[in-house]
Amino acid sequence: MRLVVPVSGSDPKTRLASVLSPDERRDFTEAMLRDVVDAVRAAGHEPEVISTAPLDCAAPITIDDRGLDPLVNSLLASTVTDGEGALAVLMADLPLVTPESIERLLAPDAGVVLAPGLGGGTNAFVCRHPEFRVDYHGGSIRDHRRIAREVEADVAEVDSRRLATDIDEPGDLAEVLLHSDGAAAGWLGRAGFEVTTSSGRVESRRSQ
Amino acid sequence: MRLVVPVSGSDPKTRLASVLSPDERRDFTEAMLRDVVDAVRAAGHEPEVISTAPLDCAAPITIDDRGLDPLVNSLLASTVTDGEGALAVLMADLPLVTPESIERLLAPDAGVVLAPGLGGGTNAFVCRHPEFRVDYHGGSIRDHRRIAREVEADVAEVDSRRLATDIDEPGDLAEVLLHSDGAAAGWLGRAGFEVTTSSGRVESRRSQ
Repeated sequence: MRLVVPVSGSDPKTRLASVLSPDERRDFTEAMLRDVVDAVRAAGHEPEVISTAPLDCAAPITIDDRGLDPLVNSLLASTVTDGEGALAVLMADLPLVTPESIERLLAPDAGVVLAPGLGGGTNAFVCRHPEFRVDYHGGSIRDHRRIAREVEADVAEVDSRRLATDIDEPGDLAEVLLHSDGAAAGWLGRAGFEVTTSSGRVESRRSQ
Repeated sequence: MRLVVPVSGSDPKTRLASVLSPDERRDFTEAMLRDVVDAVRAAGHEPEVISTAPLDCAAPITIDDRGLDPLVNSLLASTVTDGEGALAVLMADLPLVTPESIERLLAPDAGVVLAPGLGGGTNAFVCRHPEFRVDYHGGSIRDHRRIAREVEADVAEVDSRRLATDIDEPGDLAEVLLHSDGAAAGWLGRAGFEVTTSSGRVESRRSQ
């Protein structure tokens, strides 16, 4: 099983620009990546990190500035051939992942295993079917279900909140503080973020 | 295992008021409740629905207008005694739940099993410990972890996106349309909601 973690290293996490400076967004991206790499290794796999620009990372990192679709589709074409090879792709902005959630992603013996993200994304997948390709534009989970159906792959979906929680927007930061004690949570704490409870869902607030 | 589904039947889902009329919020609440009841039964359990006001429901329904904390704490006190009894509480606004996600909630043999909701809530739990009590005010998952620790219960958490996705706000409706074909999804479709993909996460839009 080849396991790839793609990450955007050039001006990452622009939707966090209202609460983090460009340098902070890069540091936070590196902290989230560290959590993902640590969880993958604790699950017994060695991740290949592929970034659009240099980033600080404890795992081997390859620079490739193609967009996500051409990158992943090229990896699929070279890794998964008829009856052989399997590729897992796990996004780098999933600091809630644990070894257990990664094991659950890798467990089903299906042609395509999808881990939906909140808001219609596809946060991780495993492919053993030679014809499956990705299309990460808006609402990708529906496209990936359709593409898998078109190539007649058997599909499994992993029901994991930890795999579903990608961190893109200020409203997502509270999830990191609530459910992780890893590198990203530590970074947020040192940057002054804390959980606030007013009414309804909790939020995060920056105090300094 | 006693399995209770509490529901607010009086002016429910006020945070959806910007997109649904009061009558529609009641109808949608009933549709979500139907999905939860169907999933619980398909998992081999019979739910007890406890509502603050009359609602249309296929399961036996009890009217109890106490707040959620006194209601659930009274159920805990009467159901779970030293070494005997178990109570599962599952919220009614979880239309993505499946028999499998309910089985995962009920599987761990722990004193307290927690299913976190997005935004720091506690969407479901199972209790076998006589001293555990609930406090559903903002950010309840942290309080429930703390309370379980204080009474020295062993705690398990269920990592389920389906149990985590409670439907409270307009931004949540897309999750129902993306990941369910049950009663609530059907209701939203008939009411004119559809998934829209612009940039970032998908949203739902009402066309009529």
